[in-house]
Amino acid sequence: MKEKYALLETVDFPQDLRKVPSSKLTAICQEIRDFIIDEVSENPGHFGASLGAVEIAVALHYVFNTPYDKLIWDVGHQAYAHKILTGRRERFHTNRKLDGISGFPNMEESEYDAFGTGHSSTSISAALGMAVAAKMAGEDREVVAIIGDGSMTGGMAFEALNHAGIEKSNLLVILNDNQIAIDPNVGALSQYLTNISTSKTYNKVKDEVWGITERAKAIRLFFQKTAIGIKGSIFRRSNLFESLNFRYFGPIDGHDVEDLVKTLTRLKKIPGPKILHVLTKKGKGYKPAEENQTLWHAPGTFDRTTGKRNGHSPLEQPPLYQHVFGHTMVELAEQNDKIVGITPAMPSGSSLNIMMEKMPNRAFDVGIAEQHAVTFSAGLAAAGKIPFCSIYSSFMQRAYDSIIHDTALQNLQVVFCLDRGGLVGEDGATHHGAFDMAYLRCIPNLTVAAPMNEMELRNMMYTAQLPNGGPFSIRYPRGCGTTTSWRAPFEKLEVGKARLLRKGDHIALLSIGHAGNFATVAADRLANEGITATHYDMRFIRPIDEDVLQEVCKKFDQIITIEDGVITGGMGSAVAEFIAVHGYPTYLTRLGIPDIFVEQGTIPQLQATCGFDADGIYLAAKNALAQKP
Amino acid sequence: MKEKYALLETVDFPQDLRKVPSSKLTAICQEIRDFIIDEVSENPGHFGASLGAVEIAVALHYVFNTPYDKLIWDVGHQAYAHKILTGRRERFHTNRKLDGISGFPNMEESEYDAFGTGHSSTSISAALGMAVAAKMAGEDREVVAIIGDGSMTGGMAFEALNHAGIEKSNLLVILNDNQIAIDPNVGALSQYLTNISTSKTYNKVKDEVWGITERAKAIRLFFQKTAIGIKGSIFRRSNLFESLNFRYFGPIDGHDVEDLVKTLTRLKKIPGPKILHVLTKKGKGYKPAEENQTLWHAPGTFDRTTGKRNGHSPLEQPPLYQHVFGHTMVELAEQNDKIVGITPAMPSGSSLNIMMEKMPNRAFDVGIAEQHAVTFSAGLAAAGKIPFCSIYSSFMQRAYDSIIHDTALQNLQVVFCLDRGGLVGEDGATHHGAFDMAYLRCIPNLTVAAPMNEMELRNMMYTAQLPNGGPFSIRYPRGCGTTTSWRAPFEKLEVGKARLLRKGDHIALLSIGHAGNFATVAADRLANEGITATHYDMRFIRPIDEDVLQEVCKKFDQIITIEDGVITGGMGSAVAEFIAVHGYPTYLTRLGIPDIFVEQGTIPQLQATCGFDADGIYLAAKNALAQKP
Repeated sequence: MKEKYALLETVDFPQDLRKVPSSKLTAICQEIRDFIIDEVSENPGHFGASLGAVEIAVALHYVFNTPYDKLIWDVGHQAYAHKILTGRRERFHTNRKLDGISGFPNMEESEYDAFGTGHSSTSISAALGMAVAAKMAGEDREVVAIIGDGSMTGGMAFEALNHAGIEKSNLLVILNDNQIAIDPNVGALSQYLTNISTSKTYNKVKDEVWGITERAKAIRLFFQKTAIGIKGSIFRRSNLFESLNFRYFGPIDGHDVEDLVKTLTRLKKIPGPKILHVLTKKGKGYKPAEENQTLWHAPGTFDRTTGKRNGHSPLEQPPLYQHVFGHTMVELAEQNDKIVGITPAMPSGSSLNIMMEKMPNRAFDVGIAEQHAVTFSAGLAAAGKIPFCSIYSSFMQRAYDSIIHDTALQNLQVVFCLDRGGLVGEDGATHHGAFDMAYLRCIPNLTVAAPMNEMELRNMMYTAQLPNGGPFSIRYPRGCGTTTSWRAPFEKLEVGKARLLRKGDHIALLSIGHAGNFATVAADRLANEGITATHYDMRFIRPIDEDVLQEVCKKFDQIITIEDGVITGGMGSAVAEFIAVHGYPTYLTRLGIPDIFVEQGTIPQLQATCGFDADGIYLAAKNALAQKP
Repeated sequence: MKEKYALLETVDFPQDLRKVPSSKLTAICQEIRDFIIDEVSENPGHFGASLGAVEIAVALHYVFNTPYDKLIWDVGHQAYAHKILTGRRERFHTNRKLDGISGFPNMEESEYDAFGTGHSSTSISAALGMAVAAKMAGEDREVVAIIGDGSMTGGMAFEALNHAGIEKSNLLVILNDNQIAIDPNVGALSQYLTNISTSKTYNKVKDEVWGITERAKAIRLFFQKTAIGIKGSIFRRSNLFESLNFRYFGPIDGHDVEDLVKTLTRLKKIPGPKILHVLTKKGKGYKPAEENQTLWHAPGTFDRTTGKRNGHSPLEQPPLYQHVFGHTMVELAEQNDKIVGITPAMPSGSSLNIMMEKMPNRAFDVGIAEQHAVTFSAGLAAAGKIPFCSIYSSFMQRAYDSIIHDTALQNLQVVFCLDRGGLVGEDGATHHGAFDMAYLRCIPNLTVAAPMNEMELRNMMYTAQLPNGGPFSIRYPRGCGTTTSWRAPFEKLEVGKARLLRKGDHIALLSIGHAGNFATVAADRLANEGITATHYDMRFIRPIDEDVLQEVCKKFDQIITIEDGVITGGMGSAVAEFIAVHGYPTYLTRLGIPDIFVEQGTIPQLQATCGFDADGIYLAAKNALAQKP
């Protein structure tokens, strides 16, 4: 090992890196790449994006005076090399583990992490804030946002470019263009970037402009003064980014670290907003990852020599919830030709790719664009379609107004499928789907449901697409369901009605979603001790089943609510409202995600910490009954 | 009157309009404009934007086969002419009134209103949904989005352009470029559009391309084949919109209705995504409005002859909450040089313009860009500033993820000032600030406060900027405060502590925000009848004052919560959680906005309908005590 990382071991922090001659940077990049492959093959993480950004990270820390100069890594999972270079190489084996380092930049973790970034398209806004603050303080600080071509399609990135173009602050945007998000990048911008990168004529102009700055001025002056000058103003504004007052440079090879260093050194001297277009390859340096970039975005553990991934054996265990969603989409769409599917850049993450393959004209990847995804769906619904719009719970936070203003207010039949609802494990605080039940529960017209298992997921999807429905939200967790025989015939569910799972005498358990399975285990254990519980799978928190609430409030002094979501404002809060409004002298114990941002760990670890796994429910029931007044 | 609108009275619906020879359209436009001036001078509404879009509306309904063809008006307050032409002329005097027509397009109101649009930047997404649905159905339906240059800065519009550029559906975007939102438009895009519009060389190229399509092809071929062809690929992609695969046409004069008709007729035949850049003047045809466009965005009633607006007499009555915010910003910023102010395109609406004038380097208008506004603020905070980010409550829905992911998760000291919290009156369902307390209450690290009066607003602002604070949200209503002597010295408030207003024996009133003033009136009236209430101004709903909740739960069987926000999930829900968790046999009555979307009306009308005005609170207290078990 020592020899393998001989150079890297001399670099604990960027100041060490800056002592290395630039001729050795290529070798350091190779060692970092090897290190990432070694580490991630044993401790799973985001792989392809970070391999593609090794040279960028090395060159940035080499040229810029970090942490005084600020680097903001958009969707921080491209930042492993950055982490390794900034004091975290020795701890890198704890990446994404409980009490380990975060898989994303984290301000609390390191002064080199200038801003936390788990969701996409935030980096330019945050960087501009820092650049403006530096300008106000008269500091010569450089601020750099590193953003992928996928993230660039998120509207906030455009909002930030539009604003940055009129601020005269020193902001460098590095467009890390690898032509892919998790799935291949879509949209007009992506095509445009490809056109720039492959157009020889453009490169020629680029080369001319590239001889910054005096020569470029002369060339422009020439064009303005000559006959060609009729297009002068176009020439000056020829590029999309230049239209927004950014000086545009590139495209250049993002894997030639010495060229990157030279380019960044020159750019550092140019004031104002500027963008450097860098071409990289996701998975660079590990052949299987280069060849199947989607699969190797976050491959799990693998054998680095053979490239064999240690995946699940899908036939022998229950399916992922997302697969149930994906297959059910196809089944329903075959029955109902109004159904269409929408995903914002998550075909493989949501499993909508199953429908996209079978029905390419009825399933849409709209790019990283959650707001647009929802309002586009609302437009489809206004035209008579029934769109199923699948978005991760934590990303749906970005489309909140589109749900309220564009969908629910107009009572349009859009089915929101919120994947990754609840604790998601290793991705940590930025990615937990903690808030959705709380933020959706207050929206008029909207049905809010969560299935306890994959059959319920299917039946909720089926129910949501029946004629004359309104907006309907279904949230389900990351990970696997409960059974291999999940493909049962569809059954219409009565909206707002709970399902009785067992009847007992001592305590009531009201669960929503998959956490109900933990309640079942806990109830079994309690039953062994002679404590019997009534357990309802609530299925819907909006509308909530008031008949059931009436029944359990009348019968029980103690009610426990169980949900994989924030306690404040969630399902337990709906039950509390009912209890208080009706004046029941009932004690309510609410289990779920407590009022903190939960960091990373395995899902079972985090569920146990939060106290809503089977052990937690069992203990809560015992405590409640022990303290019974 | 009859003679004045001789032509217009023959046009009840677009089919009538299409029978008129195009030579008479200019006269019809003049009558519509007169009609709008007459109506809005007596019944206040959005004025300037609709005057500017008269010719666009007439030309669109003349050329397109509405309602089969779909028009989607971005931020629908530009759509008065559209409403007048589509069966609502006779009802136009009820505009924005209780049970009258909505001030925005509304799908329930008319089949000609293809999509409801109160918030900006949604139109292209919705229109694309309809265009894609038409393509799937094989319909030759045309879908048109009409969007202002201000709305175009909203990220969702860009997300939609990026997606539309790869869909081969028939979508026409009309860029209604009047160089202004409510305040003058800012940002690089705005500068870019101005450059296009004023550049003679650009217009020359435009004229060449304009001879669609064979001639343009020939010209392009010429450029590609000649020496100038080295820039051929740039020429073809010369325009920002063309970069995104839109065919770009214009700019043309948006007040020449006959030219608009000709242009639209030709464009109708061109398939695929296209954009027509139309130059208009906000307030067109009414000189005072042309000369002060911000003031005349929504001028209130006025004398149409003299142009005198019937405004408030600001010296004699309490100030608008927004003015208290604006003046207090300056006072605080003078004391604390870390403070900066941010508004997304609402300088005059939020009164941040007061700070922008006095401290232009410390106050930022970032364009219509709520997400960016918040994440830009988070970036400023990460660099040591204390940003006050002022956004209307209903628009903040758009920045929800930026609050959670970029601000609260990192515990950054950003102060969110949510103006227009609660029912806003005539703007109706799209604009009520109904949900903020519910959607903010579940976010860890965030303080959520609402002042009962302007002194509390000032003290909350003061408290929020003290050293070592975290994210802090303050929401206040549209309209006036309670006193003319509001400029008291600052006082630090204890976070999470309520304020006792009166002590009584029969019932507890817990209010948050300005609705507490209604509770005071109700309590007086109850006292006259011998019913005494304890009344707390809760001030904070996160953290909520549990000592006070303990006290009132112990003492009272009946508690009433009062808030100008949704009942489901709001402050009353926080109180319910406390009651149920502690098992108090207390009856809770929650007053606030019920679980529906509330339409327009005056603010007092709507507060009465919802039942949380003084009458409603009084009655609720009487009912609660009458039904006391």
